[in-house]
Amino acid sequence: MVLYGLELIGVAVFAVSGALAAGRKQLDLLGVVVIALVTATGGGTLRDILLDSHPVFWIENPVYLPIILGAALLTVGYAKFFKPPHRSLLIADALGLALFSIVGAQTTQQVNSSAIIVVVMGTITGTAGGVLRDVLLADIPVLLRRGRIYATAAIVGISVYLCLQWIGLMQPWAAMIGMIVVAGLRLAAIIWGLMLPIFSLSDDPSSSN
Amino acid sequence: MVLYGLELIGVAVFAVSGALAAGRKQLDLLGVVVIALVTATGGGTLRDILLDSHPVFWIENPVYLPIILGAALLTVGYAKFFKPPHRSLLIADALGLALFSIVGAQTTQQVNSSAIIVVVMGTITGTAGGVLRDVLLADIPVLLRRGRIYATAAIVGISVYLCLQWIGLMQPWAAMIGMIVVAGLRLAAIIWGLMLPIFSLSDDPSSSN
Amino acid sequence: MVLYGLELIGVAVFAVSGALAAGRKQLDLLGVVVIALVTATGGGTLRDILLDSHPVFWIENPVYLPIILGAALLTVGYAKFFKPPHRSLLIADALGLALFSIVGAQTTQQVNSSAIIVVVMGTITGTAGGVLRDVLLADIPVLLRRGRIYATAAIVGISVYLCLQWIGLMQPWAAMIGMIVVAGLRLAAIIWGLMLPIFSLSDDPSSSN
Repeated sequence: MVLYGLELIGVAVFAVSGALAAGRKQLDLLGVVVIALVTATGGGTLRDILLDSHPVFWIENPVYLPIILGAALLTVGYAKFFKPPHRSLLIADALGLALFSIVGAQTTQQVNSSAIIVVVMGTITGTAGGVLRDVLLADIPVLLRRGRIYATAAIVGISVYLCLQWIGLMQPWAAMIGMIVVAGLRLAAIIWGLMLPIFSLSDDPSSSN
Repeated sequence: MVLYGLELIGVAVFAVSGALAAGRKQLDLLGVVVIALVTATGGGTLRDILLDSHPVFWIENPVYLPIILGAALLTVGYAKFFKPPHRSLLIADALGLALFSIVGAQTTQQVNSSAIIVVVMGTITGTAGGVLRDVLLADIPVLLRRGRIYATAAIVGISVYLCLQWIGLMQPWAAMIGMIVVAGLRLAAIIWGLMLPIFSLSDDPSSSN
Repeated sequence: MVLYGLELIGVAVFAVSGALAAGRKQLDLLGVVVIALVTATGGGTLRDILLDSHPVFWIENPVYLPIILGAALLTVGYAKFFKPPHRSLLIADALGLALFSIVGAQTTQQVNSSAIIVVVMGTITGTAGGVLRDVLLADIPVLLRRGRIYATAAIVGISVYLCLQWIGLMQPWAAMIGMIVVAGLRLAAIIWGLMLPIFSLSDDPSSSN
């Protein structure tokens, strides 16, 4: 029940982040709504399709769609009058990432017991929406590019969640600690600018395909 | 039967529009065929995967594939000698959009009765092929960017189609009127340059992820 | 058994090619791993989803994932000290393409007997990973653009494989000859710079959507 409420908040937060990204690219109103929908539902949809878990979560429970629509339109209205609160949004986005990753991992555990698959699917649930958003906006996904700890935070948090269960902690506690790890790592990365090393290769024309 | 014939025409029209877009980016012959295939089948394929409705329509009935191949190659041959008829293509594309949206809505009604899901799936059927085409060509999808009435026409037409059924009209009539609404709105938007408002947000470097 | 070993090598080769492409775009370590994963698993994943063949191959047998991770990290380490061996990589990539295309065709034959579907699915298995890699890197896929014989080699080789079976050759022999045709065509295209004709259309602003 608490989880369901948190999930609705997570969806709304991701919808807002999608709408703001769309605004930076000067899309029209419909484009804003589409990007908000894709950002908020993309990760869970990809997880459900890969796991053959039908109906897909937002088809089974269409309440997500009006929430996303509302969040996107409120964002547009708000941004007409005020400066968007970037800092609080980053914090909300970190909470959304934490929530989606661990909920995605839990959903996966119900159908697949391989630890590596649980980690991959939880990470996809938390991050694929943002990747799709960037692909539709014709950018290299932020996730891949900037070196900040984003998917890495999800991977570490889900691993902690699995380890805690493995040593005997009850699932709800393990989940809560896992979420704290994801959100904590992500916020630490934002505050102190933590980055992963960059792999840089000079372009070699002889390698053209 | 009439519907099936219309659907084959719709597929061919979308294949032509894909081939022309590919030509503007100087792709090779295979690239033209691939883009034509993706444009013509992308929307229906995404709908079938999301609804878990297998086999996907072009796997169940592979006749679509040679039609798309033929339409793409004819387009290349034609464009070698004549100027492509952009105006008539826009009209054909509007008819294709009308047809695919309403047929997609009808297909969805057979497996899901939620009105919002029917609208979303019909719109995906009509527009996702063009979005995939633009993503493969590394553009921000036209659909999201230009502010012309495109997906909006599909959304309005499908809603009209559902309302008419709800007040008791028989499905074939509701479908025909729905298609006329989609095509009419889209053509009106082309003729008078109707646009949705743009949501423009200045880029804020502090918001970087 | 031999096939399974070859498949593991194919996955590793595609992971290396993904990691090198990521390095050319200066992604971070996680981005390199994600691009390697997508390049190596994308084609087979899309095939399995389109054919509703679940579990998807890497979910059924998660051993692919650590192999891809290892190949990507070795590539990063190697490239720190040595010049990447572009020429040998192109050869390895041609072998990977040959292998994936024919294996994809064989997998498809088990669930669908239409020749055109077998050719399409085999080609998707061999090439879609590279297309997804390029989409994530915000490039027009090399496959569509450069005019070199790549997907074309897969299409021809799979067709040869099907024809040989049709005239009565046993499947393993037909598969081997099919692979030799794919790899041979691709290597010939690299060595002699064979290309498909380009379809070039001037941009017409009146055609804007």
